[in-house]
Amino acid sequence: MERRPHGGLIPREFEIGRQVLVGDTADAFYHRTLAILRNEGINPEVVIEFMPERRGILCGITEARALLTKVLPENSREVWAMDDGAEIEPGFPVLRIRAPYASFGLYETALAGMLASSSGWAGAARECVEAAAGIPVVSFGARHVHPTVVGHMDYAAIVGRCVSATSVVGSRMAGLTPSGTMAHELVLIMGDTLKAATALDRHMPPEVPRVALVDTFRDEAEEAIEVARALKEKLRGVRMDTALERGGVTPALVREVRARLDQAGFSHVDIFVTGGLNPERIRGFVNSKSPVSVFGVGAYIAGAMPNFMTADIKEVSGKPVARRGRVPGITQNPKLVRIL
Amino acid sequence: MERRPHGGLIPREFEIGRQVLVGDTADAFYHRTLAILRNEGINPEVVIEFMPERRGILCGITEARALLTKVLPENSREVWAMDDGAEIEPGFPVLRIRAPYASFGLYETALAGMLASSSGWAGAARECVEAAAGIPVVSFGARHVHPTVVGHMDYAAIVGRCVSATSVVGSRMAGLTPSGTMAHELVLIMGDTLKAATALDRHMPPEVPRVALVDTFRDEAEEAIEVARALKEKLRGVRMDTALERGGVTPALVREVRARLDQAGFSHVDIFVTGGLNPERIRGFVNSKSPVSVFGVGAYIAGAMPNFMTADIKEVSGKPVARRGRVPGITQNPKLVRIL
Amino acid sequence: MERRPHGGLIPREFEIGRQVLVGDTADAFYHRTLAILRNEGINPEVVIEFMPERRGILCGITEARALLTKVLPENSREVWAMDDGAEIEPGFPVLRIRAPYASFGLYETALAGMLASSSGWAGAARECVEAAAGIPVVSFGARHVHPTVVGHMDYAAIVGRCVSATSVVGSRMAGLTPSGTMAHELVLIMGDTLKAATALDRHMPPEVPRVALVDTFRDEAEEAIEVARALKEKLRGVRMDTALERGGVTPALVREVRARLDQAGFSHVDIFVTGGLNPERIRGFVNSKSPVSVFGVGAYIAGAMPNFMTADIKEVSGKPVARRGRVPGITQNPKLVRIL
Amino acid sequence: MERRPHGGLIPREFEIGRQVLVGDTADAFYHRTLAILRNEGINPEVVIEFMPERRGILCGITEARALLTKVLPENSREVWAMDDGAEIEPGFPVLRIRAPYASFGLYETALAGMLASSSGWAGAARECVEAAAGIPVVSFGARHVHPTVVGHMDYAAIVGRCVSATSVVGSRMAGLTPSGTMAHELVLIMGDTLKAATALDRHMPPEVPRVALVDTFRDEAEEAIEVARALKEKLRGVRMDTALERGGVTPALVREVRARLDQAGFSHVDIFVTGGLNPERIRGFVNSKSPVSVFGVGAYIAGAMPNFMTADIKEVSGKPVARRGRVPGITQNPKLVRIL
Amino acid sequence: MERRPHGGLIPREFEIGRQVLVGDTADAFYHRTLAILRNEGINPEVVIEFMPERRGILCGITEARALLTKVLPENSREVWAMDDGAEIEPGFPVLRIRAPYASFGLYETALAGMLASSSGWAGAARECVEAAAGIPVVSFGARHVHPTVVGHMDYAAIVGRCVSATSVVGSRMAGLTPSGTMAHELVLIMGDTLKAATALDRHMPPEVPRVALVDTFRDEAEEAIEVARALKEKLRGVRMDTALERGGVTPALVREVRARLDQAGFSHVDIFVTGGLNPERIRGFVNSKSPVSVFGVGAYIAGAMPNFMTADIKEVSGKPVARRGRVPGITQNPKLVRIL
Amino acid sequence: MERRPHGGLIPREFEIGRQVLVGDTADAFYHRTLAILRNEGINPEVVIEFMPERRGILCGITEARALLTKVLPENSREVWAMDDGAEIEPGFPVLRIRAPYASFGLYETALAGMLASSSGWAGAARECVEAAAGIPVVSFGARHVHPTVVGHMDYAAIVGRCVSATSVVGSRMAGLTPSGTMAHELVLIMGDTLKAATALDRHMPPEVPRVALVDTFRDEAEEAIEVARALKEKLRGVRMDTALERGGVTPALVREVRARLDQAGFSHVDIFVTGGLNPERIRGFVNSKSPVSVFGVGAYIAGAMPNFMTADIKEVSGKPVARRGRVPGITQNPKLVRIL
Repeated sequence: MERRPHGGLIPREFEIGRQVLVGDTADAFYHRTLAILRNEGINPEVVIEFMPERRGILCGITEARALLTKVLPENSREVWAMDDGAEIEPGFPVLRIRAPYASFGLYETALAGMLASSSGWAGAARECVEAAAGIPVVSFGARHVHPTVVGHMDYAAIVGRCVSATSVVGSRMAGLTPSGTMAHELVLIMGDTLKAATALDRHMPPEVPRVALVDTFRDEAEEAIEVARALKEKLRGVRMDTALERGGVTPALVREVRARLDQAGFSHVDIFVTGGLNPERIRGFVNSKSPVSVFGVGAYIAGAMPNFMTADIKEVSGKPVARRGRVPGITQNPKLVRIL
Repeated sequence: MERRPHGGLIPREFEIGRQVLVGDTADAFYHRTLAILRNEGINPEVVIEFMPERRGILCGITEARALLTKVLPENSREVWAMDDGAEIEPGFPVLRIRAPYASFGLYETALAGMLASSSGWAGAARECVEAAAGIPVVSFGARHVHPTVVGHMDYAAIVGRCVSATSVVGSRMAGLTPSGTMAHELVLIMGDTLKAATALDRHMPPEVPRVALVDTFRDEAEEAIEVARALKEKLRGVRMDTALERGGVTPALVREVRARLDQAGFSHVDIFVTGGLNPERIRGFVNSKSPVSVFGVGAYIAGAMPNFMTADIKEVSGKPVARRGRVPGITQNPKLVRIL
Repeated sequence: MERRPHGGLIPREFEIGRQVLVGDTADAFYHRTLAILRNEGINPEVVIEFMPERRGILCGITEARALLTKVLPENSREVWAMDDGAEIEPGFPVLRIRAPYASFGLYETALAGMLASSSGWAGAARECVEAAAGIPVVSFGARHVHPTVVGHMDYAAIVGRCVSATSVVGSRMAGLTPSGTMAHELVLIMGDTLKAATALDRHMPPEVPRVALVDTFRDEAEEAIEVARALKEKLRGVRMDTALERGGVTPALVREVRARLDQAGFSHVDIFVTGGLNPERIRGFVNSKSPVSVFGVGAYIAGAMPNFMTADIKEVSGKPVARRGRVPGITQNPKLVRIL
Repeated sequence: MERRPHGGLIPREFEIGRQVLVGDTADAFYHRTLAILRNEGINPEVVIEFMPERRGILCGITEARALLTKVLPENSREVWAMDDGAEIEPGFPVLRIRAPYASFGLYETALAGMLASSSGWAGAARECVEAAAGIPVVSFGARHVHPTVVGHMDYAAIVGRCVSATSVVGSRMAGLTPSGTMAHELVLIMGDTLKAATALDRHMPPEVPRVALVDTFRDEAEEAIEVARALKEKLRGVRMDTALERGGVTPALVREVRARLDQAGFSHVDIFVTGGLNPERIRGFVNSKSPVSVFGVGAYIAGAMPNFMTADIKEVSGKPVARRGRVPGITQNPKLVRIL
Repeated sequence: MERRPHGGLIPREFEIGRQVLVGDTADAFYHRTLAILRNEGINPEVVIEFMPERRGILCGITEARALLTKVLPENSREVWAMDDGAEIEPGFPVLRIRAPYASFGLYETALAGMLASSSGWAGAARECVEAAAGIPVVSFGARHVHPTVVGHMDYAAIVGRCVSATSVVGSRMAGLTPSGTMAHELVLIMGDTLKAATALDRHMPPEVPRVALVDTFRDEAEEAIEVARALKEKLRGVRMDTALERGGVTPALVREVRARLDQAGFSHVDIFVTGGLNPERIRGFVNSKSPVSVFGVGAYIAGAMPNFMTADIKEVSGKPVARRGRVPGITQNPKLVRIL
Repeated sequence: MERRPHGGLIPREFEIGRQVLVGDTADAFYHRTLAILRNEGINPEVVIEFMPERRGILCGITEARALLTKVLPENSREVWAMDDGAEIEPGFPVLRIRAPYASFGLYETALAGMLASSSGWAGAARECVEAAAGIPVVSFGARHVHPTVVGHMDYAAIVGRCVSATSVVGSRMAGLTPSGTMAHELVLIMGDTLKAATALDRHMPPEVPRVALVDTFRDEAEEAIEVARALKEKLRGVRMDTALERGGVTPALVREVRARLDQAGFSHVDIFVTGGLNPERIRGFVNSKSPVSVFGVGAYIAGAMPNFMTADIKEVSGKPVARRGRVPGITQNPKLVRIL
């Protein structure tokens, strides 16, 4: 995916919700802090820096910029950041804001949360992509996170170099067509893999690739060949998502189905593998040269530990400060560029 | 917290967003599945069951009920579920829907995601609460998740028996007052812990408990005694969130500050501990009888691995079915009760 | 299996081969030792004891007795032994011979080898039987050892409480009918599991139980139900030996096939499980209450480490002796009984 | 040892026993399979391949060829194999037979067993030989296996590059003189190491090397020097087999005995080490440069885990087939050569 | 050993050396601290407490009392302590001094060192004694520590319940006769174990027990029986200290020598075991019921990690104080008794 | 430190005490050995060698030479040794004595003990010095050993390349000025770090470097800056010895204090770190580039396991001998030089 320049227009899906803007999602003690400072008549210019807890991939900056654009006073703000997709590490800030404290104090919770969640997802995706060593990876994580963040999760997976994602909203945020074509539900309701595959072929527009699930009722190799015989050249691929109770998908299973498809004359049919994949299992396939065409990863990306962000005030009215345990003053990071 | 009966009115915060209702957050292959079935003229009554991946605490049912109420046809639906807060385990369904497939097929992604995320948070909270062995636990997780799910996360933490949470929205969903009173930011901007504490006391209404952060500039014991001398009986407690660079908060530190406060005549001042807590570290405090008054837990709850949900069609038009690897037909679970 | 009294006639299969009797299988240094002693005119009465290296089950005594009966002078011999099937442990002799040295010196190698190999197999079988907690275990080990010891191996497995074995000779030695009925070869050559099963039913005498292999071409549950529909009441059971490349046989697979057979009305059909079983994997089935009817164990029994035997001269002409590291004189073991 | 070409005459010891030829050592289900196929009038030409379970050294081919020569119809057979002593690995067949199924179906059990047992022994021997880094290794395993396989075991050890073996039959099969000269029994019966050594010297023909056991009654160094003083130039070596109760033979013990022999002027006397040796312990001697002359290995070779063989039908009447989990058709292996 | 009351006269060996009394062994910064306080005219009454780092056995109090008696002003001192041999644990003081600071400030280094070293040795001895489960333990540690502390080490070992020690000075401090009678040097110089043993018998007064080393030149069992035959009833015991190069002394070796001595009629001869013993190896002998009569322990006791002591000022002029990290004021310990 | 040539005068502190010279610290069995040999009229020239148990640094030779000079007969002695500070390893002697046995037999215990203790300390010091990678290390171990060996311990630490030590006697033995300037006791008694620091400055001669402890009452950074403001250019450094209850001294704490001192204009002030340091923790500081100026190590050096020494007689009257397990005769070591 071509990374989009963050200086451009911000897509509609990144718009900030009302709940966030009125501060409902903030920690209550920030409301109180702002009330006290207002009563005391204090509102200095403050510098705050956000730093990640561990190495990884940055994501969430596009959304943070959307929020800050809305709330910071245009003539007295300075925002520096790294880019979505950048490699980050502890000790180096990824976002720095200089503005009157009252203009952003209420949004520290939200900013930290956006960056933590999205960077967590993007980093996990990147781990899978690196393990896959060139074989494409697709995000199948939508069903594993709360629906209100599905879009941000899939967008982050794509920032982490997944080639596509299954959710409608996430795909739209990344400007891509959603991946995946057939659900176990279709096969179970129609009662037969072949019927389901031919129905799909009948009713879907030509641009939707024909990829058939082949693990629902019978042996994977048997179903794969049967579907290939029916759809012939139109069959783009088969997906195996074999239940763990049946041993899951193993490198040997992929190798056997590949060989049987080839022996039956269907070398053009790709093999999509999903089901409990993570970097270690992906490396298992890659190292044993198992002929996988595409990996689909769900829970590993969706359940990624957030890359927790510390947010530290480093200057108040131009004077370096810091709480005990931190070095006062701005932390140098040549990779920051001014975005507002 | 008194668990609310789920038969009552559903609070406004649980209302389902437009993006979810139009199916934007669904996996695209469900849209395709529905289109194919529609074209084939197939819409049988289907039973689907959701099962958790691991032991834990259930949450998300209130929200799932809000969604299903909206989308299922009133005269041909049956929904069975366990209660938010119930103990769950693999092999036993937590939600069962019987309805025409077309009425809910588009929401499987969203339902699985709600239950997975919320149950993950609730389970992590419960682990902390059990480790704390009677000492209250407060959720400080808001800054560690994407802002659009802060409310659901804090609500789940309270379902998991946290006594309160810091976010405005989460507290409101649980019908509680948000916890926490002073931010490092207030101390850093005012430049002095004592000044910050007395300002807080001056400007906050009496019902807000006075809890002062005492680790920002100087030794914790020194700041705690200084604040106690200033606020006297009005000081409800001190919070220590010592940076890890300074060794974090240890059982011995709490014991020493407790002893020094007591020797100075401030036995009434509670000690709140936050900063990187998890069940193991909480057990460390409890086992060494460190005199903690309240634990605040953030990243452990907010970063909880979702309790991933499998969703399996088990009947089609009254006939037991299942994909390979699963036993066809409904799975008995006497703890399910009909909720719709 | 009813243990046979070792005082009775020795079955033909335990007869000692010519190679052993002429000393060809002995270590050459025993030939030399005997030559030297003969030249020196020395042939004292000697006591030798055989002791096991580790805890386990004794086997090989029936065969050892067959050999000693042949070679020891009838009027000047005394042989004490424990019984095949007895529990043994290091430090306690399992066989003690008192006789002129020249009469048995050449057979020490063979006696130690018989006891070591057979006790190794019997002990491994017993471990499986104990892990199976009451579910019958059958020896499938014949293909994993050199054919000339197949009989001794299967006999030892039955001494270790397997209910039967697959080899013709081993079954005959134990007085049992061999187990197992269908080979993958039959299915592959006939090209179809159903055809193979009905052919078996057509041609086998009624006393051979109908047990069909159901993992050769298609899904195990599918093949099992198909065969059951064809053979109905006559089908005694199905055997699953799923390849490891397909995840092997798992507790969940057995549970599912059991459920699908039951739902189809074939509760009378047993499920036989084979393929890489060992005590740990058997315990996995037992602990998860997977409804296995019979376990078949091959490599674990056949490849058992021999229970290596030390053989020590403990008396020479009535005088206690021992090499350095051993205590001179006879070792007490109340469980020894005189067998010759 | 010079490997003998397998195209030549097959030595008498490799002759196949009657029990094997009549199929008594086969799994009974092969008898049944053949009966069914006969009744159905089916006897296609079949290709079967044997593959090892793990890396190692091949052995058993000489014997397998002896069997197949006897049973396959001369004008319609094709047998391909690797050589005894070859390095093998999983995924590559070591034996491939193409013949009418009825001609060999009964011998699959025996063929798999021969190859598994002999390859297991040969592989273990090779591990010891490699660990010994040039110091000769002798097989002392005869007493640890059932006597009917002693010859095959010692032959396999020599195929695995042991320089000799102790059993009469194994040595004969490999065309070598058996190794080892004195037993503890000789010393214990004669009551004195020196007496035993001089008796051996008196009565053995000159071509038998004089190697004296020196650990039976007194300190190893003391006995070694005493024997050396008596036999002088005629003493080829001393063997230490010190009991584990006395610490076993250690690198330091060998070094000390070597030094004391040298100081007494007996540098020509070799030191043979036996007793519980395995590759790890051998490496211990080699790495610490302990001056061992010859290693004798027993239980590690004799108790080697068989290299279990899978046997898969890969063609029936010229058509590629395979059971689920295997790739249909012949597996390429350029190292196979036609032997029949 | 009867513990001596610490209120009595202090034996000469506990007298404090000149180097300690003039402060040469102190950390220089205590000299400086005292100089500064003197110049400032400050000399308050101070309470200092010594606490151990880990659980163990206390030793060094007798010596500390000897020092404090000399240096504290008689009419203004208060010293509380636990007894040599008491069980101690972290968090509870073992010594508390209340006196003008100038009178003891220079000796903090020495007091901490005495207690740390002696308690380390006593604790290690106790561990061995407990492992020995009633079999006597003797300290052989003299050669493993600097000679100027040999006496204190052996005294501490006896406080830890060793029955005796080998050093002249340590035995004298504990009021016992030194243990051990024959050195390898005697045997090596006389060239023969038997000669050495009879010479010892000839020249030692009758009260010295005859214990012969039997591992120097020949097999232990052989030497033991030979010596027993020569000294008969006068032989109290044999000591085995077999070199590790020869496998060290093992439970099996002791068992064999015991059996051979008994068979030869020398049941009255004790077996002393030394050489690399520690609690784990002692437990090995005890658990396998090896018939050891006496254990001799050297390096484990002598090389014991000191039980490091923290020394904290807890009151100054009657006011509770403490450095950060410690609780101000005296720590309760009901086991302290006033000794000065 | 410049290593002093061992040929020179031996400093007074190395003089051997009366207790050692009269043999009171010897094992009693050496007294007995000498008595027996005297009675037998035996006093051969003997060669004895001392060998270390493990790799490390040699120390104690200076002291051993002082003892041997006193006791060996001048015209019939030969002493070979390696140098204090040399690298040693098992198998190579570090000291060899050739002299009439009666002249040194009583001192074997003392010689082994000197070398073992001092080499243990020197080796531990060297490990710290190597871990520190160029940052100076000071011995703070005096309070952790018995006072009578404080001097030898600190001398050995300096032989191991510590730059200085805190004890008066150890510093004198090494010809250095003792290190360290302020005790917690001074701060606690004066009640304030600043007061203590200025008093030190007032009363100490100018050559004593001003190093202030800054962890007693308040935050380390706060106290450090306060003291620096008072003493300005005269302040050489600050020492942090933060209690473990407060997290100990961490690399991050040093970095922060360094940064805050630099920001306040006190770049000239060094940072001394003490408290529970060992090679692993030192490497932690070095690897994270924490700006430590000097490390102070106590317990790790003082509590070092002695490098236990074996002492073996290798010649008696010119004839090679050795006990079982050792090679008779002198062991070659080209690094030995003759010192007497």
